[in-house]
Amino acid sequence: MGVKVVGEQLPNMPWQDRPAGCSDVLWRYDNNPIIPRDLLPTSNSIFNSAVVPFEDGYAGVFRVDNKAREMKIHAGFSSNALDWTIDPEPIDFVCSDEEVGTFVYGYDPRVCWIEDRYYVTWCNGYHGPTIGAAYTYDFQAFYQLENAFLPFNRNGVLFPRKIGGRYGMLSRPSDNGHTPFGDIFYSQSPDMEYWGRHRQVMAAAHGWQSTKIGAGPIPIETSEGWLMIYHGVLTSCNGFVYSMGAALLDLEEPWKVLYRGRPYLMSPQRDYECVGDVPNVVFPCAALVDAPSGRLAVYYGAADTVTGVAFGTVADIVAFVKDNAL
Amino acid sequence: MGVKVVGEQLPNMPWQDRPAGCSDVLWRYDNNPIIPRDLLPTSNSIFNSAVVPFEDGYAGVFRVDNKAREMKIHAGFSSNALDWTIDPEPIDFVCSDEEVGTFVYGYDPRVCWIEDRYYVTWCNGYHGPTIGAAYTYDFQAFYQLENAFLPFNRNGVLFPRKIGGRYGMLSRPSDNGHTPFGDIFYSQSPDMEYWGRHRQVMAAAHGWQSTKIGAGPIPIETSEGWLMIYHGVLTSCNGFVYSMGAALLDLEEPWKVLYRGRPYLMSPQRDYECVGDVPNVVFPCAALVDAPSGRLAVYYGAADTVTGVAFGTVADIVAFVKDNAL
Amino acid sequence: MGVKVVGEQLPNMPWQDRPAGCSDVLWRYDNNPIIPRDLLPTSNSIFNSAVVPFEDGYAGVFRVDNKAREMKIHAGFSSNALDWTIDPEPIDFVCSDEEVGTFVYGYDPRVCWIEDRYYVTWCNGYHGPTIGAAYTYDFQAFYQLENAFLPFNRNGVLFPRKIGGRYGMLSRPSDNGHTPFGDIFYSQSPDMEYWGRHRQVMAAAHGWQSTKIGAGPIPIETSEGWLMIYHGVLTSCNGFVYSMGAALLDLEEPWKVLYRGRPYLMSPQRDYECVGDVPNVVFPCAALVDAPSGRLAVYYGAADTVTGVAFGTVADIVAFVKDNAL
Amino acid sequence: MGVKVVGEQLPNMPWQDRPAGCSDVLWRYDNNPIIPRDLLPTSNSIFNSAVVPFEDGYAGVFRVDNKAREMKIHAGFSSNALDWTIDPEPIDFVCSDEEVGTFVYGYDPRVCWIEDRYYVTWCNGYHGPTIGAAYTYDFQAFYQLENAFLPFNRNGVLFPRKIGGRYGMLSRPSDNGHTPFGDIFYSQSPDMEYWGRHRQVMAAAHGWQSTKIGAGPIPIETSEGWLMIYHGVLTSCNGFVYSMGAALLDLEEPWKVLYRGRPYLMSPQRDYECVGDVPNVVFPCAALVDAPSGRLAVYYGAADTVTGVAFGTVADIVAFVKDNAL
Amino acid sequence: MGVKVVGEQLPNMPWQDRPAGCSDVLWRYDNNPIIPRDLLPTSNSIFNSAVVPFEDGYAGVFRVDNKAREMKIHAGFSSNALDWTIDPEPIDFVCSDEEVGTFVYGYDPRVCWIEDRYYVTWCNGYHGPTIGAAYTYDFQAFYQLENAFLPFNRNGVLFPRKIGGRYGMLSRPSDNGHTPFGDIFYSQSPDMEYWGRHRQVMAAAHGWQSTKIGAGPIPIETSEGWLMIYHGVLTSCNGFVYSMGAALLDLEEPWKVLYRGRPYLMSPQRDYECVGDVPNVVFPCAALVDAPSGRLAVYYGAADTVTGVAFGTVADIVAFVKDNAL
Amino acid sequence: MGVKVVGEQLPNMPWQDRPAGCSDVLWRYDNNPIIPRDLLPTSNSIFNSAVVPFEDGYAGVFRVDNKAREMKIHAGFSSNALDWTIDPEPIDFVCSDEEVGTFVYGYDPRVCWIEDRYYVTWCNGYHGPTIGAAYTYDFQAFYQLENAFLPFNRNGVLFPRKIGGRYGMLSRPSDNGHTPFGDIFYSQSPDMEYWGRHRQVMAAAHGWQSTKIGAGPIPIETSEGWLMIYHGVLTSCNGFVYSMGAALLDLEEPWKVLYRGRPYLMSPQRDYECVGDVPNVVFPCAALVDAPSGRLAVYYGAADTVTGVAFGTVADIVAFVKDNAL
Repeated sequence: MGVKVVGEQLPNMPWQDRPAGCSDVLWRYDNNPIIPRDLLPTSNSIFNSAVVPFEDGYAGVFRVDNKAREMKIHAGFSSNALDWTIDPEPIDFVCSDEEVGTFVYGYDPRVCWIEDRYYVTWCNGYHGPTIGAAYTYDFQAFYQLENAFLPFNRNGVLFPRKIGGRYGMLSRPSDNGHTPFGDIFYSQSPDMEYWGRHRQVMAAAHGWQSTKIGAGPIPIETSEGWLMIYHGVLTSCNGFVYSMGAALLDLEEPWKVLYRGRPYLMSPQRDYECVGDVPNVVFPCAALVDAPSGRLAVYYGAADTVTGVAFGTVADIVAFVKDNAL
Repeated sequence: MGVKVVGEQLPNMPWQDRPAGCSDVLWRYDNNPIIPRDLLPTSNSIFNSAVVPFEDGYAGVFRVDNKAREMKIHAGFSSNALDWTIDPEPIDFVCSDEEVGTFVYGYDPRVCWIEDRYYVTWCNGYHGPTIGAAYTYDFQAFYQLENAFLPFNRNGVLFPRKIGGRYGMLSRPSDNGHTPFGDIFYSQSPDMEYWGRHRQVMAAAHGWQSTKIGAGPIPIETSEGWLMIYHGVLTSCNGFVYSMGAALLDLEEPWKVLYRGRPYLMSPQRDYECVGDVPNVVFPCAALVDAPSGRLAVYYGAADTVTGVAFGTVADIVAFVKDNAL
Repeated sequence: MGVKVVGEQLPNMPWQDRPAGCSDVLWRYDNNPIIPRDLLPTSNSIFNSAVVPFEDGYAGVFRVDNKAREMKIHAGFSSNALDWTIDPEPIDFVCSDEEVGTFVYGYDPRVCWIEDRYYVTWCNGYHGPTIGAAYTYDFQAFYQLENAFLPFNRNGVLFPRKIGGRYGMLSRPSDNGHTPFGDIFYSQSPDMEYWGRHRQVMAAAHGWQSTKIGAGPIPIETSEGWLMIYHGVLTSCNGFVYSMGAALLDLEEPWKVLYRGRPYLMSPQRDYECVGDVPNVVFPCAALVDAPSGRLAVYYGAADTVTGVAFGTVADIVAFVKDNAL
Repeated sequence: MGVKVVGEQLPNMPWQDRPAGCSDVLWRYDNNPIIPRDLLPTSNSIFNSAVVPFEDGYAGVFRVDNKAREMKIHAGFSSNALDWTIDPEPIDFVCSDEEVGTFVYGYDPRVCWIEDRYYVTWCNGYHGPTIGAAYTYDFQAFYQLENAFLPFNRNGVLFPRKIGGRYGMLSRPSDNGHTPFGDIFYSQSPDMEYWGRHRQVMAAAHGWQSTKIGAGPIPIETSEGWLMIYHGVLTSCNGFVYSMGAALLDLEEPWKVLYRGRPYLMSPQRDYECVGDVPNVVFPCAALVDAPSGRLAVYYGAADTVTGVAFGTVADIVAFVKDNAL
Repeated sequence: MGVKVVGEQLPNMPWQDRPAGCSDVLWRYDNNPIIPRDLLPTSNSIFNSAVVPFEDGYAGVFRVDNKAREMKIHAGFSSNALDWTIDPEPIDFVCSDEEVGTFVYGYDPRVCWIEDRYYVTWCNGYHGPTIGAAYTYDFQAFYQLENAFLPFNRNGVLFPRKIGGRYGMLSRPSDNGHTPFGDIFYSQSPDMEYWGRHRQVMAAAHGWQSTKIGAGPIPIETSEGWLMIYHGVLTSCNGFVYSMGAALLDLEEPWKVLYRGRPYLMSPQRDYECVGDVPNVVFPCAALVDAPSGRLAVYYGAADTVTGVAFGTVADIVAFVKDNAL
Repeated sequence: MGVKVVGEQLPNMPWQDRPAGCSDVLWRYDNNPIIPRDLLPTSNSIFNSAVVPFEDGYAGVFRVDNKAREMKIHAGFSSNALDWTIDPEPIDFVCSDEEVGTFVYGYDPRVCWIEDRYYVTWCNGYHGPTIGAAYTYDFQAFYQLENAFLPFNRNGVLFPRKIGGRYGMLSRPSDNGHTPFGDIFYSQSPDMEYWGRHRQVMAAAHGWQSTKIGAGPIPIETSEGWLMIYHGVLTSCNGFVYSMGAALLDLEEPWKVLYRGRPYLMSPQRDYECVGDVPNVVFPCAALVDAPSGRLAVYYGAADTVTGVAFGTVADIVAFVKDNAL
């Protein structure tokens, strides 16, 4: 199939083929979860994880809730993208402004390479949740920027290149609790400090994505548009159920939705996705893509407790979204 | 024991006896769940299931939520009532009135043989949930009738014969969300089109049935009264817990409760009942009864994800209700 | 203007002309409120009032809340439609069925002449609010019928003639509290006992009618369609605000809206509408129409405390609705 | 007293002196309300009003809710700042971007002269309330800019000059309903298009300002700091009560509060403030200041229905805030 | 009528007779409100007021909310019980224990003479509202005791003599907000420090007292039992409505209700009761009784803003309660 | 380590050592759960369990919910503290006062030896949950005392000796539902009948204990202070998560917190803790301590369904709390 993916070749990635008899677009890694909840002696859970190729292997930032159930962000490294070493200490952001740099809580990070450095965005506590931002060259030193928005906001996800000469970010305006609503917006910035030109991208819809939605991995640039994998939430009488789906956005005006998948790509069905600190959650935060082959590995939090991986191909997801558009 | 059951003999039913040492009134089938969530390639879950004897085997209508988490109703067939083939396409109801026939969503069906045909009732989306109605002769063509009530209503369950010359239906007035209250009412109709003479049957009570209640299988006519198996809901700090219990209703005035069981018959305790899209749900929608022997198989949705079966006898349930009356 | 109104000539009605300088479609009676809250020694308030021509004067049924704040329905009489005598005792409905006839509470009555008698409908307590129904020939003896619907329902309003050979009723499905939503539906009955063929008429919309809506007076048959005056509710941060507006419904298929007014006809602005047991309420329950002249008097509850009258003409309202349609 | 006020002399202002025996810091104009609810034939209410000196008289933008209870913004003019002519048509903003310029609803405007033009900010509907922005030279043509923030936000109030080389705006992050919380934040922009460097200014505190707070008139520059008049909300068991108070902010770092008044300056006490569409509201949106004399007139919405004026002096308010600091 | 009242003769009380034509049990003083909201320069409102005979006149403690809307308690004096002088400073309680004596907020006081001193109880802030207690001999020095209960509690009302050898107090367990429920309980103490033997007295019932109830004045000892005047709350769609009613309690076991009035004695109907900081409130906190004549004056807060008085006789109230018992 | 523990030596306790490689302060018993949900034929679940040394073995009182989901308290006995026999009948409390002694519901018991007898406290239904109290000498006859407090209260836990000459009890003021808040208070009594001198001990804090907290086992007297093991609750979007932690309280003024652990000691992570009637609950109610060795066994309810045991040492917990203080 002719879907072209922008990007690099991935090193050392132990891909797993689709199991025989499986017709799903995404299939889970056999050895899920790849990161157990207690990888660190002090960790309660390690889940929403943002990984990228780094040097000749991989690096990432990870949501680590400690045994006080405090939400922190840690850096980590891997040679094969599946076996991870996580720094036992949280990231200590360098910030020149005490008001901004005072750490309250941080969770659900994303990492995005733009031009010359890795940007990290996360849900940052500043009189409520908003989008924190920082950059790093080496996953050792992280330089914190201004928060992108006023509270209350979550799921800030950057695009991997400037669009129309400006940085682009997806996010979800929220409230201060377990927000029961939420759409995806697109915002722009000339300098990563001041943000504006906000556009609604898509609203919560129905079924698995009827309560709220939020962007997941860094959007993947393809010949068919930006492939956005995102989570959607359904409210059952016993709480929220988080599934993941996908949509294609216009390459130059990413607030325009070209196609949006009606069914989910994956919903919580395995024990490690259904049982844990928050039952029934699959929450994607990153995807590794091997551009030449179009192979893809989605990293997702499971039950807000552990980290899993699912495999697939960009071409299959694109076809699925177009063939099953909402 | 002298409880007489009105009805037929069941064909080809692989009954399972009470396990040694088990003192419960109902016992689960060894091979539960009998219908997995992914029996269809497009299904997210198949659970609240309404089965009846049909020709020399069995037929049924099934709640099938697809992977968009849209709620649909499918027909299915089985020779032995345990192994089911389900039509991959939802039922396409024939309806002469577009306003009524436009399908919005449908769930939690029941099927009831009355006189010369099978009636199907279900929770039908029409500006909110109400009770949809249809009939079929062959489980191929389904002819949709007027909705029985104004919204908001759920759990519409017909009686298998006219009472006092009129059709009878149980239902639960509801609101438009995850209704936190709800009693069972009885309504009457001369023609299955116009309904009236509404009577309250029983209210939510305490313990396992303290939040709301709703009728389950078609009531079973016995010499002791109508045996109504129903679900009851308790609200824990982590959401609703659905159990099942039973009551006996007056044969000629079914809105009069003769006995109502204080304990539940069965509560969610097995993994497939406690873990799934909605944890902690057993939700009965049908019962097959072998009239000569009084044996009974209750079909129930488990965790809003799969379908299970539990065995017992009418006589035991009747005795249990009378001996443990509220 | 050529709007024809179906109906009779009214006797002894002291009409009041539009005040000079007033451009409103409806104007209030100078001596409002016409019924004070303490007309009876035991009354806390007398407000939502349903009046009709009767013999050579007028009769009506009235919502009277007593000083225990219990909601009751009383009959009353007037020679000129403005000065009322109200029976100090609530109506004692004759009912052959104790289950239906046991009075729990009753409020917000409407009265409708059909063929040979006056029908009364009201919000009747039966395990929650539903639509009670009765008829009378003389406003002395009232014969109670079956409740029209299952709970929860309010604002049941009959049409003054059969349509398509069946009785027609508007109502609003509700919940069991101060319902924060609600649309108008149309239901049909061959016999005033069994009801079906339910159709949605119109939903809450925006502005003054953005929270919920409910039919008010008996619809007025005109050459332009059924003129339905109804209330709409807006939710401010200090509670509900009840205004009144109008729409035109198709004569033979009254669930089809021909025109619906975007602005309100009247909102609570006078002291007796803004201050009282429930501030900011005008709630129409009846209209007297003089068919030959098209003059009209709307009776409405003010602040859930007293009863007011507003004057106008059918032609002006029809023109207003058509010229300012939503 | 030595408080110096930055600004111009006001023309033609009919000041009213403090009534004898009155010890309040602010006193109401004798002829309140100055703008009745029905100044326009189509208006339901005219209240939160933003006025400025213009040419040799005054101009302003006004919240006008029409009789459909739709929220619009109108321009208006006055020679003496008390008698107003309001354009019967809403402002038709010129906007080059359809996505931004599509008018959904607008309310609670403010007007601020900066350098060479009048900026208007208001609560603008864009997938929820956010801060709309526009400018005008003549109150005839209004040129709409990008919305300043993501939803949900209200009470966007500009500073009358750049601070630290950047435009400054106060606002209150909100949710999508009758928000029951809310603090004042300060945001900065190099260009009125991109906003960042968000700082919390002050939180809801206690008493009259315990639920939420929001900036009112354009801050007044004085030798003691920026004088910010703002509203505070207390939640009684019968809803929100809106009062007004004041604080002094640092001139160069306005997110630093120098003094904040513990008591309110004015609370709803007069009939036109206590009775109306929303009882118990005084909501300041503008202040006219005569710099040489320090006299001041605060314009405020009353009961969300009409517009009132209160008089005082900057020096008295400053002294009051400093002497009664929280 | 033969109802005997225990107590003293009142000095200098300007009684007002029942107005001609009035059939109500209680009638309002002509010059209501007797205490305006701004009697003190710093007061926002003065309402729930507890008055007692003192020396040859009267003294009392008063809820005074200042213009910061902080809730404080002040002492006051009067020669004729209608014209009051209120101390501009709040009461400064003497307390040996800093933890208890730290004043957070105080409201809704009651005063009760027992044996040799005046006890004051009020709603006292200590990690939520609870019942504060103190005593005074002279209304100059007030000695604070331990809080009677754990939070959350309101409306603590002492009995004027020991019963069964123990002090008795009525109170209402509450939550930490605008509690939407609440019954009256009776608690006992050997020493005014330790409380126990808690008994429920009466629950919220229906109509005007369907949401919650709370004791008002010190119970009045009569030959028919303790006459308890209390407030009841009804929840309308626009908030709480506070009315007052009465009940008779057993003299020796006051948790036993002898009679309880079904209708209210008085509901908010006058402008000063319907319009103010909290619309629709009459809230009784004290009653002066002239024992020889049985005349009584009830002091009540109106609209949470001002203080009113209503007159009546103990015999009439007793008869009313017995003749209209719930 | 030098922590001294006050108490006795335990008989026949099959201690289990810390598993190799485990660094947790507490470790679970290998054969958990020690009490299955269906130990009794009528039990739905047996969980929050209070055990003490008794004679030459152990006794306890247990929360047993039956299959009607009614909450009862049963006595039980064990020779080794792990294998339990539970009385199939609930405890029948002897009570001289019918008002107090009428059993409504009882749950979450604790047992405390003081001086000469075992005191039982539990959450007792009396117009809402409050703290019931009783004593026994032999776990056969239980003598019920007055309820300690007014409703609403839960988690009443006695201290094992008088402090300052008075009995001491911890408890948590609550509301009448699934309370979403709650702090621990300390109350005192000269006689186990009257309670006063209430002091707040500690509030809900953050992380795992951010919603509410409640005392668990009887506090353990050590040379470092009272060791209080307690539960804390975090609210996820899918409900409450109950973990357990510890704090040290001052020996003579136990309302003073010396140290409070920031991380939890144990959170729900095993299947039997995460899956059951209430997912994600570990709820400690008792601890057996072997004073000479400092070994300790914590008894806790798991998933509100079964009973588990975890082992550790007092010294380790004390060190953990001091080294990881909040």
